Amino acid sequence: MDVDEAETPLARWEQRAELPLFWASLVFLAAYSVRILAHEVDRIWRELAFATMLLMWLIFAADFVVRLRLSGQRLHRFLRTHWLDAVVLLLPLLRPLRLVKLYTTLQRRRDQAVLSLYVRVIVYAGLGAVLLGWAGALAVYHQERTAPGATIVTFGDAIWWVCETLTTVGYGDVTPVTTWGRIIAVGLMICGLALLGAVTGSFSSWLIQVFTREDEKRPPEDGRPPGAPSS
Amino acid sequence: MDVDEAETPLARWEQRAELPLFWASLVFLAAYSVRILAHEVDRIWRELAFATMLLMWLIFAADFVVRLRLSGQRLHRFLRTHWLDAVVLLLPLLRPLRLVKLYTTLQRRRDQAVLSLYVRVIVYAGLGAVLLGWAGALAVYHQERTAPGATIVTFGDAIWWVCETLTTVGYGDVTPVTTWGRIIAVGLMICGLALLGAVTGSFSSWLIQVFTREDEKRPPEDGRPPGAPSS
Amino acid sequence: MDVDEAETPLARWEQRAELPLFWASLVFLAAYSVRILAHEVDRIWRELAFATMLLMWLIFAADFVVRLRLSGQRLHRFLRTHWLDAVVLLLPLLRPLRLVKLYTTLQRRRDQAVLSLYVRVIVYAGLGAVLLGWAGALAVYHQERTAPGATIVTFGDAIWWVCETLTTVGYGDVTPVTTWGRIIAVGLMICGLALLGAVTGSFSSWLIQVFTREDEKRPPEDGRPPGAPSS
Amino acid sequence: MDVDEAETPLARWEQRAELPLFWASLVFLAAYSVRILAHEVDRIWRELAFATMLLMWLIFAADFVVRLRLSGQRLHRFLRTHWLDAVVLLLPLLRPLRLVKLYTTLQRRRDQAVLSLYVRVIVYAGLGAVLLGWAGALAVYHQERTAPGATIVTFGDAIWWVCETLTTVGYGDVTPVTTWGRIIAVGLMICGLALLGAVTGSFSSWLIQVFTREDEKRPPEDGRPPGAPSS
Repeated sequence: MDVDEAETPLARWEQRAELPLFWASLVFLAAYSVRILAHEVDRIWRELAFATMLLMWLIFAADFVVRLRLSGQRLHRFLRTHWLDAVVLLLPLLRPLRLVKLYTTLQRRRDQAVLSLYVRVIVYAGLGAVLLGWAGALAVYHQERTAPGATIVTFGDAIWWVCETLTTVGYGDVTPVTTWGRIIAVGLMICGLALLGAVTGSFSSWLIQVFTREDEKRPPEDGRPPGAPSS
Repeated sequence: MDVDEAETPLARWEQRAELPLFWASLVFLAAYSVRILAHEVDRIWRELAFATMLLMWLIFAADFVVRLRLSGQRLHRFLRTHWLDAVVLLLPLLRPLRLVKLYTTLQRRRDQAVLSLYVRVIVYAGLGAVLLGWAGALAVYHQERTAPGATIVTFGDAIWWVCETLTTVGYGDVTPVTTWGRIIAVGLMICGLALLGAVTGSFSSWLIQVFTREDEKRPPEDGRPPGAPSS
Repeated sequence: MDVDEAETPLARWEQRAELPLFWASLVFLAAYSVRILAHEVDRIWRELAFATMLLMWLIFAADFVVRLRLSGQRLHRFLRTHWLDAVVLLLPLLRPLRLVKLYTTLQRRRDQAVLSLYVRVIVYAGLGAVLLGWAGALAVYHQERTAPGATIVTFGDAIWWVCETLTTVGYGDVTPVTTWGRIIAVGLMICGLALLGAVTGSFSSWLIQVFTREDEKRPPEDGRPPGAPSS
Repeated sequence: MDVDEAETPLARWEQRAELPLFWASLVFLAAYSVRILAHEVDRIWRELAFATMLLMWLIFAADFVVRLRLSGQRLHRFLRTHWLDAVVLLLPLLRPLRLVKLYTTLQRRRDQAVLSLYVRVIVYAGLGAVLLGWAGALAVYHQERTAPGATIVTFGDAIWWVCETLTTVGYGDVTPVTTWGRIIAVGLMICGLALLGAVTGSFSSWLIQVFTREDEKRPPEDGRPPGAPSS
């Protein structure tokens, strides 16, 4: 099945376009960062950043159209199997979530040694959480910065708020007060929780695996099956 | 076993009644929404909404009685195997939780392509959480709106409070202060946590599955079993 | 192994004593509730409650000694395999956690139909969380009630605080301020989180199981293995 | 593979050095505790504590160099397989996380009876969380103690803050306000969540295992497979 896929034009396009598109998404994120954070400097920088964002988005749109054509499917059918692609087209800040495809592509190309399963999940989900958190901090900071009664007034506050939100600690010392800030917050909670859940879940699984392997190495002395609690 | 079930009158009734009952529960939820949110408009709307709720509830009760009869079981035995049905009869706002049965029924009828297991769990549990959250936001808003010292004063606050409660973030910027508001909150915490736990858990499982399949495709070079951590 | 166990005097004692001890632990909890909550009524009631608690504790201690003797083991060895028993002897409010043993004993006696695995875990862990939460609310209320600057001033506040703590929502509208209140809170967080984690985890597993069984009933049309995501 | 490892000089060094290094890391932690908590006593104590910390760190560095040499690998390759070792070299307060290796080493030496898998994961992860929490409380207390507007003003506050952070309850009654305090907090959230996730996850798994074993002992009467929900 894998070999067949590599033969189709769509698969070839996806393999070739993945890395440039990832760089484009990083450029998009960087341009967005400049646009939001550079609100005190010359206006030209913000305009330049906006133009860059628009350019990157056009690249994303072109990629989507090319892939739709190459798939030979109708739009509604293509959307059903590639709904994640459509979502990241509308919300390019979510693009980091496609990181997992990039990883697969890179692996195929470089033929590298495979990292441990859990380490890869931790790295991927952790990286996704970091990129998503950065984008969320920017977006919330943009909404809250000038709102009356806001507690998120510096970008440092926004980063701190993102961290306590993604880990579900939620002290509540800084919280969004605007409607759009809260909508972004809810999106961030849902996406980020799943990613960080994957990180902590993988770590727990890895820990249990380490101990299980110990069990297999040495048969228990008292004839109980490994893993049986004593009480 | 499945074939036998489809032969019994009870199973036939359940298959036929499921979809109308689901629509009835949505109408109930809509009428409840009107009753709570339209507190500033003409009183006639609220009375109409209440009448609709009562009618829908009578439909639910009739369905329960029909199924009790068709099962040929005593009440206490029927309650033991259908306790969820009894709970949703008393608290019709929890009815969305029966969505899983509706899905099964629809699948049988339409003979559709099966979605991925994890996607289905995410969609079902996510949808359940959304419906439950909406009902909870309405109920809490109704209790808190006019309470002295309340922080949940608009319906937007109630929605925001539901989102931070279901994700267990719990900033505490808005919290229920009335006894009934808090009782509803506790019910929402318990039901919603389980649903959202299913969503994030499924996402994590899906992520691990994606990486595991990669492992199976390519044997590791260094002879270590797949998934073995290196340190 | 099971049959052998039933033959030893220790196993016979444990089977016979389990139910009376469970009632004793409920009496202990009730007496503690009276002692804490009846701080405004006649002093005789509180003294009576204290005497009851002492009596129940003597029963627990007697049971522990009997079992230590019947086991024929040294104290330090007995403690290693029965550390949970020693903990509940020192902190009788944690005794509800032994509920799982009671369940096993009752099952053996009555030879009842077995409930579904997940339902049993949910019921046991949920019941354990309720009993633990009640005990924790009493203990924290006792510490905080008269403390200067306390936010937990009524027993209702204490219950509300326990609920938002066990679900890890943690709004922070009411929090313990005394040292002992905080120590009890930490214990409650750790014990309760695990119990409620079992409840939500079981619910998620049950949900995934329901969908998995659907998969097994109907082979997918497009030849993909069940559970395979499409993107 | 295990036997081969035990033959190499690196494995022999690691087995011999593990226990002394663990004691060294406890001494480091104790010295750090003295340095932070003894801010009101004579300055000589703090200087002494600092010297001890430096000495311990030199021991850690020496161990790292010895192992790098014994492995015969280049630095970049060694770092890839021993990245955890490099992290604990830079942040010695994270050293308790290597506890899992110590456990393995001790087991090999003493040839003790194996504890239940879940009990071991709970003990290891719980101990790791305690040590990490202690180190985090010290570090945050050091940053916050003298900050203007700080809510963490006593070490008791810091401990309470660590507990509500690690369990993700996050009341928000005490929160770090300094930049470095918040950076430490984020590190603590991520590391600690994973450890405590392992504890609660193991407890849930153990609970499910206990009930599963009951299922296997007694076949259900009604022919349903064990674990099948009835509704």
